[in-house]
Amino acid sequence: MWIYEKKLQYPVKVSTCNPTLAKYLIEQYGGADGELAAALRYLNQRYTIPEKVIGLLTDIGTEEFAHLEMIATMIYKLTKDATPEQMKEAGLAAHYVNHDKALFYQNAAGVPWTASYIQAKGDPIADLYEDIAAEEKARATYQWIIDMSDDPDLNDGLRFLREREIVHAQRFREAVEILKEDREQKKVF
Amino acid sequence: MWIYEKKLQYPVKVSTCNPTLAKYLIEQYGGADGELAAALRYLNQRYTIPEKVIGLLTDIGTEEFAHLEMIATMIYKLTKDATPEQMKEAGLAAHYVNHDKALFYQNAAGVPWTASYIQAKGDPIADLYEDIAAEEKARATYQWIIDMSDDPDLNDGLRFLREREIVHAQRFREAVEILKEDREQKKVF
Amino acid sequence: MWIYEKKLQYPVKVSTCNPTLAKYLIEQYGGADGELAAALRYLNQRYTIPEKVIGLLTDIGTEEFAHLEMIATMIYKLTKDATPEQMKEAGLAAHYVNHDKALFYQNAAGVPWTASYIQAKGDPIADLYEDIAAEEKARATYQWIIDMSDDPDLNDGLRFLREREIVHAQRFREAVEILKEDREQKKVF
Amino acid sequence: MWIYEKKLQYPVKVSTCNPTLAKYLIEQYGGADGELAAALRYLNQRYTIPEKVIGLLTDIGTEEFAHLEMIATMIYKLTKDATPEQMKEAGLAAHYVNHDKALFYQNAAGVPWTASYIQAKGDPIADLYEDIAAEEKARATYQWIIDMSDDPDLNDGLRFLREREIVHAQRFREAVEILKEDREQKKVF
Amino acid sequence: MWIYEKKLQYPVKVSTCNPTLAKYLIEQYGGADGELAAALRYLNQRYTIPEKVIGLLTDIGTEEFAHLEMIATMIYKLTKDATPEQMKEAGLAAHYVNHDKALFYQNAAGVPWTASYIQAKGDPIADLYEDIAAEEKARATYQWIIDMSDDPDLNDGLRFLREREIVHAQRFREAVEILKEDREQKKVF
Amino acid sequence: MWIYEKKLQYPVKVSTCNPTLAKYLIEQYGGADGELAAALRYLNQRYTIPEKVIGLLTDIGTEEFAHLEMIATMIYKLTKDATPEQMKEAGLAAHYVNHDKALFYQNAAGVPWTASYIQAKGDPIADLYEDIAAEEKARATYQWIIDMSDDPDLNDGLRFLREREIVHAQRFREAVEILKEDREQKKVF
Repeated sequence: MWIYEKKLQYPVKVSTCNPTLAKYLIEQYGGADGELAAALRYLNQRYTIPEKVIGLLTDIGTEEFAHLEMIATMIYKLTKDATPEQMKEAGLAAHYVNHDKALFYQNAAGVPWTASYIQAKGDPIADLYEDIAAEEKARATYQWIIDMSDDPDLNDGLRFLREREIVHAQRFREAVEILKEDREQKKVF
Repeated sequence: MWIYEKKLQYPVKVSTCNPTLAKYLIEQYGGADGELAAALRYLNQRYTIPEKVIGLLTDIGTEEFAHLEMIATMIYKLTKDATPEQMKEAGLAAHYVNHDKALFYQNAAGVPWTASYIQAKGDPIADLYEDIAAEEKARATYQWIIDMSDDPDLNDGLRFLREREIVHAQRFREAVEILKEDREQKKVF
Repeated sequence: MWIYEKKLQYPVKVSTCNPTLAKYLIEQYGGADGELAAALRYLNQRYTIPEKVIGLLTDIGTEEFAHLEMIATMIYKLTKDATPEQMKEAGLAAHYVNHDKALFYQNAAGVPWTASYIQAKGDPIADLYEDIAAEEKARATYQWIIDMSDDPDLNDGLRFLREREIVHAQRFREAVEILKEDREQKKVF
Repeated sequence: MWIYEKKLQYPVKVSTCNPTLAKYLIEQYGGADGELAAALRYLNQRYTIPEKVIGLLTDIGTEEFAHLEMIATMIYKLTKDATPEQMKEAGLAAHYVNHDKALFYQNAAGVPWTASYIQAKGDPIADLYEDIAAEEKARATYQWIIDMSDDPDLNDGLRFLREREIVHAQRFREAVEILKEDREQKKVF
Repeated sequence: MWIYEKKLQYPVKVSTCNPTLAKYLIEQYGGADGELAAALRYLNQRYTIPEKVIGLLTDIGTEEFAHLEMIATMIYKLTKDATPEQMKEAGLAAHYVNHDKALFYQNAAGVPWTASYIQAKGDPIADLYEDIAAEEKARATYQWIIDMSDDPDLNDGLRFLREREIVHAQRFREAVEILKEDREQKKVF
Repeated sequence: MWIYEKKLQYPVKVSTCNPTLAKYLIEQYGGADGELAAALRYLNQRYTIPEKVIGLLTDIGTEEFAHLEMIATMIYKLTKDATPEQMKEAGLAAHYVNHDKALFYQNAAGVPWTASYIQAKGDPIADLYEDIAAEEKARATYQWIIDMSDDPDLNDGLRFLREREIVHAQRFREAVEILKEDREQKKVF
């Protein structure tokens, strides 16, 4: 089970009301390679992965929920003072008529999140490559959003998140190596 | 952010290896009215709900993740010793060829979870009725699963979960009343 | 069975060709909480609801089809004289290349309607709360669209429709009370 | 708008409680080529089709709702006396844990209905071929269900419905010819 | 099996960098009536269609892959020199943050391709009408895109593709006649 | 463009009519990690990947279409002589009422293929890890199907296909190394 602690993993600041940036960030909230996809993917794989890797999946999965909360906070801060007219100019009219300024688990184009984005095969090597790929894709998404953003405060938070994805990818690569070694050992003896 | 505590909210026991029951329980893992839907629905609505209700959504949303973990543990225990032949007899052959015995966020028929199941409107009364309906629907699902189950140990856990849904529905009803009263007050002064 | 009567439930007027407003209205045609969702939800639940409530579901479900026809007429009137260029400026280019000016059951972002938006549980209380939530959510959507609209003729029609949702919500609340009383009565005797 | 008349287009009888047949019939309720798809497809195309064909689309679309009601009644009659155990034996356990014996707009495999099954292009010839194809596909589905059914009472109703699809296909073919002739005429003068 | 030949079926030219046109063309890449849908639809039906028609389906299905490649090349050429700012102005910001300038099988609104767009019934007449409708719908889509385009080089390619759809529709109509005649013959003898 | 050659990449044999095995194989036809997903994923990424890797993606993508054809042939051979009753016993009744014995791009549970299963990020390293993960997941799926199969002739074909996935994974790993080296070189000079 999880205990909620009322603080963010890393402080979130935004320079100004900017619903256009919010629209892009929705991709990392409910998009194919966003934080929801990451958290749900890792926590779901815990039951059939070798015991050695369970802790890693729990740790990273739990951290991804903290990232999801950071993204949610960013989107909220970027839109909370926006008028309907500003939402419209930001390409968020379709969002507004459905959700007002509430968040929703969809990508930047408005397509609802689906579990079809993620996978669990029961095969540890396949699952870990699924995870490495997920982190590499999330890293790319952060890069494309940073390319589009001119908000230095927001970018500070996005760079923190991008760095975490790189660290996670590395840890999943190490886990592959550990499992492969184990497999070799078993063949030897 | 959340802290993971390595224990279940309520102990999970199952009497025997029983993949047939596991198939039904998947409905509460990744189905329309399952625990994933509940957790994600409430935590997502926190940003635009009146401040008075945020804590309630955080508490219940976080608890639903604990329920999700209980359901996952039940499914895992019911299937971990099953042979491929037993998976097939339980109607889980389609699950097996795709996921082996890994869990997946789908309903009992194998349809992947989609955010289209849930909603956030930015209107507090609409959002809270969405939540009451969610709890009533989850309560019904637990009932239909209990109808199908003959495992007394499992049923003990399921009854605990069903009770929690009834409590949550009640708390969401109270929140509606509180917000309506506030609205009345504002009109008076 | 149904008989078609060639008139609208309430007269539909629009002030000018305005595809931008049409784009927003599509949300109530084929969106999560739109008129199609409402009609199909209620008519589908009729078979397993207690007999006392069947007539209510048939009446409201049939009326929602009349609302769907009003929304369709509004969208058609707002777009029928639009040039491709005007469709593009209204954010309807993606609609145009796929459907020209034909209507389609999708939301304002262009996501096709799915039955995942609605539910039927066989449990009368759960089903009626699903319906109350549906009406509250539809009411909110009409509000967000009215917020975006500056067409007084259109708004007259939208306000009529919003009022109907409030009436329906009230009638579903009464149905819950009737069923709860019945349940109490049965327990007493 | 539509007026509900409390009778079926054609009497529906079933010989015995038979949830297995109900499972197959769900395909015509909420499947790709079922009655819901048909009704929604034709009624939606009315706004941009040449005036000559509007009445045909309204008539057939309205009739398809009557067919939908017949299918719903068949499914209800085939399942209403079934025990949970009988639902399970009929392959409806996944349906039961989610919906009890309520109906739902999904296909026989349990996939929810989506508007992606249907289309409207604004081009009259394309739309009418879409409709002819729809009727031919519905005719085939009725044939496959009749192949699977050994209930003579049910088959009587299914044969009636299959015949109606053949008539509709013919009427859509005639509409294509009328529109092509009109086009020729316009070219001549 | 297929052999790749490194040339396009018909030369693809575009006048200038124009991501706005690219956005529209995505409809024919991964939309409901696009080239992917066409290719996959015909090649899939080959196994249960009468032998006389298999070659036709293989030929047209294989040609549609060549069309898919032409569309891909057009989209690539229209976007390869675009800046992020130009992508944004073209309504492709949501595409950019998810895919940078990579292609993706989605429609112009960003909805991912789904097999729900296509059908195979095992009934040859139904399958061929599905195919005729597909070609008529693709023809319409090309028309709507040409309406929106002012790039004469691009339009030359699009007109070639539109013509091919008309030819294919005609060949599918002939196949229906051949199968109907065969059926008549069998009845006679 | 592609040229069709009327032969299979590797001979396909099945021992007996066995629709149960056909049901499992559908997972590799239209499932999340099946051959359709593989072919479409690689061919789509070709436009934005560094030139050095384009040929590899074209080669493997084209080969995956040959695999798709092998799987289609297997499914067809396993079902072509099956009676409706045998289809039903194999868990294919829902398939039969919708598609008769025609193939369809869906997974073993009957969920239609969606492009949400695959990804293209425009970032070469992310795209190649997506591809490695795809091959590892396909390898696992083949293993789970072989676990369920007792048809030695079929298994011969499945083992050939599983081996090809391992080779492809290796080639994608090499491509990652080549691109990383190139990147290093550029940093040095």
